[in-house]
Amino acid sequence: MQADPVDANALRSGVLTRALARFVADTQWRDVPAAVRNEAKRSLVNYFAVALAGSHDPTLDKAVGVYGRFRADQTATLVGRSERTDMLNAAALNAMSANVYDFDDTHIPTIIHPTAPVAAALFALAESHPMRGDALLLAFVLGVEVACRIGNAVSPEHYQRGWHITSTCGVFGAAAAVAKARALDEQRVAWALGNASVQTGGLVETLGTMSKSISVGNAARNGALSALLAEDGFSGPNAPLEGERGFLRVAAAQPDWTAITRDLGHEWELLKNTYKPYPCGVVLNPVIDACLDLRRDARWSLDDIEQIELTGHPLLRERTDRPGVRTGRESQVSAQHAVAVVLARGKAGLDEFSDAAVADPSLRALAGKLRFIDDASWPVESAQVSIVLRSGQRVSQRVHAARGSLAAPLANVELADKLRQLAADGCSGVDAQPLIDRLWKFESEDDAAAVMRLARI
Amino acid sequence: MQADPVDANALRSGVLTRALARFVADTQWRDVPAAVRNEAKRSLVNYFAVALAGSHDPTLDKAVGVYGRFRADQTATLVGRSERTDMLNAAALNAMSANVYDFDDTHIPTIIHPTAPVAAALFALAESHPMRGDALLLAFVLGVEVACRIGNAVSPEHYQRGWHITSTCGVFGAAAAVAKARALDEQRVAWALGNASVQTGGLVETLGTMSKSISVGNAARNGALSALLAEDGFSGPNAPLEGERGFLRVAAAQPDWTAITRDLGHEWELLKNTYKPYPCGVVLNPVIDACLDLRRDARWSLDDIEQIELTGHPLLRERTDRPGVRTGRESQVSAQHAVAVVLARGKAGLDEFSDAAVADPSLRALAGKLRFIDDASWPVESAQVSIVLRSGQRVSQRVHAARGSLAAPLANVELADKLRQLAADGCSGVDAQPLIDRLWKFESEDDAAAVMRLARI
Repeated sequence: MQADPVDANALRSGVLTRALARFVADTQWRDVPAAVRNEAKRSLVNYFAVALAGSHDPTLDKAVGVYGRFRADQTATLVGRSERTDMLNAAALNAMSANVYDFDDTHIPTIIHPTAPVAAALFALAESHPMRGDALLLAFVLGVEVACRIGNAVSPEHYQRGWHITSTCGVFGAAAAVAKARALDEQRVAWALGNASVQTGGLVETLGTMSKSISVGNAARNGALSALLAEDGFSGPNAPLEGERGFLRVAAAQPDWTAITRDLGHEWELLKNTYKPYPCGVVLNPVIDACLDLRRDARWSLDDIEQIELTGHPLLRERTDRPGVRTGRESQVSAQHAVAVVLARGKAGLDEFSDAAVADPSLRALAGKLRFIDDASWPVESAQVSIVLRSGQRVSQRVHAARGSLAAPLANVELADKLRQLAADGCSGVDAQPLIDRLWKFESEDDAAAVMRLARI
Repeated sequence: MQADPVDANALRSGVLTRALARFVADTQWRDVPAAVRNEAKRSLVNYFAVALAGSHDPTLDKAVGVYGRFRADQTATLVGRSERTDMLNAAALNAMSANVYDFDDTHIPTIIHPTAPVAAALFALAESHPMRGDALLLAFVLGVEVACRIGNAVSPEHYQRGWHITSTCGVFGAAAAVAKARALDEQRVAWALGNASVQTGGLVETLGTMSKSISVGNAARNGALSALLAEDGFSGPNAPLEGERGFLRVAAAQPDWTAITRDLGHEWELLKNTYKPYPCGVVLNPVIDACLDLRRDARWSLDDIEQIELTGHPLLRERTDRPGVRTGRESQVSAQHAVAVVLARGKAGLDEFSDAAVADPSLRALAGKLRFIDDASWPVESAQVSIVLRSGQRVSQRVHAARGSLAAPLANVELADKLRQLAADGCSGVDAQPLIDRLWKFESEDDAAAVMRLARI
């Protein structure tokens, strides 16, 4: 970038939008480092895992019904399902499936779930516009880069204020990805971003309700639409991101202008992406790890437990101190439920965070024994669970970096296991293995849409 | 309303959303005062006028092409055009047509253009779900009420910050209107509002570009979708508006909670709606009136003009001091262009604010003679134009309340004239008179969709 990115005239003229558009238009597969290519495939394995898991949630059943009344054709697959639909509806519905349990990936600096909107848009496109695997991977990498950089520029204020950042930034990612897949030039990529800038909706208030899925679906659908409109010459403003009334200023009082272009093409946001081992809020990961460890070595029974102490950064308490939850959704962010169910069952899968698990009275009793101990000196990635037995004895387990964190990423085999497990949990009837095999060598795939045929019934 | 509306617990529990939902679910046609019923019809006459005007703009041609690839059926009309499409696409595209020139109506307290999203959604619905004229009018009145009350609660901060309020609040209006037309109960209306709350996008930065039209179309389309989803049990949060991370707090730092329910059912927002006589920013209306008056009595020729002085509130200068505009769109908010073209041509229609008019070199020379004089003591509705002739003589015209303002509303015959004129300007080939006749007696219409058949080719 030539100009000082915080120069007011440069911002008004759209210097950041242009730089980002040029990056999307110019970057080739050979420019993407091997580690980033690999992470893209890992993200896709995780994507199909969570999309299969969510594919038969009641949210999806209802959405498929209503959206299905407005399908133009049947060129596109719904992951894990038998219905077919058109490109835009498939983009929306598959993004919903992948995100409905918040079990999808997490870009650590922003807590954006980057893959659902971007991958759903690209695979839907690929089913009617044939492309190679490496072309889809390149578009995916660039879409994630755009969404997460825009997210970096407005974080943490944007999410804290109440915007569902996966939705609001995801639409830019899907737009950039589809623009790349359609080989749009710099001007048209910029228009695609402009067309996306007016479609940034989604509220944190709706987490745990069906409404949330609409905005995640829209991010994929409307991002794709933004690019298709731009391809046909539907034009936008010069500075949709950095203009005086552009997205960045509207989304945050003090946007970090430099985040959009700093080390663009050298630092890759996908390398800050993580995958959840458990279908819970990420802050609960070390808590669940600790409980699994405690249970594995248990020389006590549940009846012996007098009290459970949970020590961690105050943020852990603020986000997860939720006694008396009533739904599976709520239980995904409840330390009380997580500790109780994992100590009782030694597992932390979708069944453990379901409406049925929440209704189990024995778990409620155990959950009532939890006490938080705040310690601001603890890193947020860490936690300690201590069980105080009736005998007075204590057993403790401290976790410094949870499974699935950047410090302890899930291994490829664990991601494959997750896909196998969730394909079964989601009742999709999809045979996971051929899908997994194909995804690990996706860069040499001739027909990117082939995996969609393996992911449907 | 029972509880103090700013009570934190009441807000958290969704007291405002519930009150609004109950109002939508319970209000009957007999509850709507005659003046409001009449204003609804006036709004619809103006709606068809501006939708016909915009129906063949290049923005629409491109959007119809791309959206047309994703039409499920052909049950719905595109105003002024020959193509047919499905309900959701028609809602989007007709809202775009009606708003593309910003020539549609203006709710004075918020500057929301309320009719485009609400009417476009309702007429699209009516073409596949037959309803009577009075049923559509009732749903329209309630939709406008919801959009504008939400707008009141976040104004003026929301627009000033950069949100395109017609789009962001319009989606609630369309959702409420379609929910009413589908006779949803209170709970489902509240869900429709929740589903709409995650679909509030649109940026002031995009005014004057094609991108703007996407969000106006989305307001209609996604509002309708929100209601259809709610009808099928797709549920939302309790407090999508007033919750801690709900729309109102996200949209404005200091929302006016009381605006949502104050005098609900007694004061009607539609009575604060106005219709533009000229296709320009409303602040230019008194300027154009003054120029038309000056020209009507002119004893001077254009060559005699030495300077033109425009006196008004500083806001007038801030919003309209735009010399050297290059497009018709930009000219709609340029005092320089408006003064020059109206003095030169004695008219202020779409032709006067077109790309062709902007390219006229004689107008540019005249526009260069304009000088602003700020006077903070002047009301924003007023303006004075003074022409200083080479002879030293001055002629002035001061306008206290512009045509089309709340103080000097357009007469019904003027609205009908506007429809006739714009049907011709928009090259739609639609015969305006039968449409006008039918709209003035719309409350006794058996088939609300009949007017759509008169408004297409």
